[in-house]
Amino acid sequence: MPQGKVESVPDDGLTTRQRRRQHVLAVHTGQGKGKSTAAFGMALRAWSAGWPIAVYQFVKSPKWKVGEETALKALGETGKGGPVVWQKMGEGWSWIQRPGTERDHASEAAEGWEQIKRDLAAEAHRFYVLDEFTYPMKWGWVDVADVVATLRDRPGNQHVVITGRDAHPDLIELADLVTDMTKVKHPMDAGRKGQQGIEW
Amino acid sequence: MPQGKVESVPDDGLTTRQRRRQHVLAVHTGQGKGKSTAAFGMALRAWSAGWPIAVYQFVKSPKWKVGEETALKALGETGKGGPVVWQKMGEGWSWIQRPGTERDHASEAAEGWEQIKRDLAAEAHRFYVLDEFTYPMKWGWVDVADVVATLRDRPGNQHVVITGRDAHPDLIELADLVTDMTKVKHPMDAGRKGQQGIEW
Repeated sequence: MPQGKVESVPDDGLTTRQRRRQHVLAVHTGQGKGKSTAAFGMALRAWSAGWPIAVYQFVKSPKWKVGEETALKALGETGKGGPVVWQKMGEGWSWIQRPGTERDHASEAAEGWEQIKRDLAAEAHRFYVLDEFTYPMKWGWVDVADVVATLRDRPGNQHVVITGRDAHPDLIELADLVTDMTKVKHPMDAGRKGQQGIEW
Repeated sequence: MPQGKVESVPDDGLTTRQRRRQHVLAVHTGQGKGKSTAAFGMALRAWSAGWPIAVYQFVKSPKWKVGEETALKALGETGKGGPVVWQKMGEGWSWIQRPGTERDHASEAAEGWEQIKRDLAAEAHRFYVLDEFTYPMKWGWVDVADVVATLRDRPGNQHVVITGRDAHPDLIELADLVTDMTKVKHPMDAGRKGQQGIEW
């Protein structure tokens, strides 16, 4: 609200109903807060719609996003909405059972992306959050052209949200929905540190 | 990630620990998507921290935000995190028991704001989402100076997130954290309509 209005009708031969059922690729980029947070907020709607949700976190962090993980998993466990799978790079993707094996971040990111490709091909989930996935794309750990082609050609009605700064122009071009979270003011500018419940 | 760095240390006589415990006023504004969604995403962290959460929705909508409401209420009902209270203007604020009474939007918004003032004074909750509250401020339904003074002087450690376009400059000035959700691209630009699970 205010409600969005359709500004033009595309000449794609689809009915409104068909167009409504098209899958969405969303990108949350920019220097401000709220990129991942809004993706997890979208997951609330997806959960309510009963959609299977998968979150892939692509950048190792000492704090991760423990609050969101706890909450979304708790929602998944209620059984009242969609199930939730949460994968964290750097603590070892759960499908790779090699405890104690040290791998470099680049190959670990590439392994994560390969799993996502398998999931998309199998239509394993309905709503995907690829959290901070812009960074492995930026750093050359995954191939941008491969990402773009895979997402463009993904089957069925699978929605994907990608977060992170400096989204690649080809990803922006492909995406249906792109929001730049622009920093206007941040507590850290005033010397304040993050706090539990707000920052993680 | 990348982790924020403290850019300066304020000369406020507080320790880092005290500063970490300061309450946060966040504003999500701008023309893009994600303002409310990111606020509800923040509520996931607040829930995990065990904080009592209150959502006030200030603009009547035929669709409301049913998915988020269902999900956050379901989280509240798990008993594993903070409780969740969800108030909707236009379906009648729950504390006003006058079924069938028609009231105009302006007075209904003012009644909502008066309840929030009572809640803040009583420290009734720990995390507040005032969804689309910028509009009643913009439309003169609530007094901007009263809002700013009340939020500035609110007791205890109560975090408040306000969403909506065209946030008033005095609110921006007061806020600790301000993000402008900037629209880069939206499916409706391509003639696509909203769909369940994504838009509501």
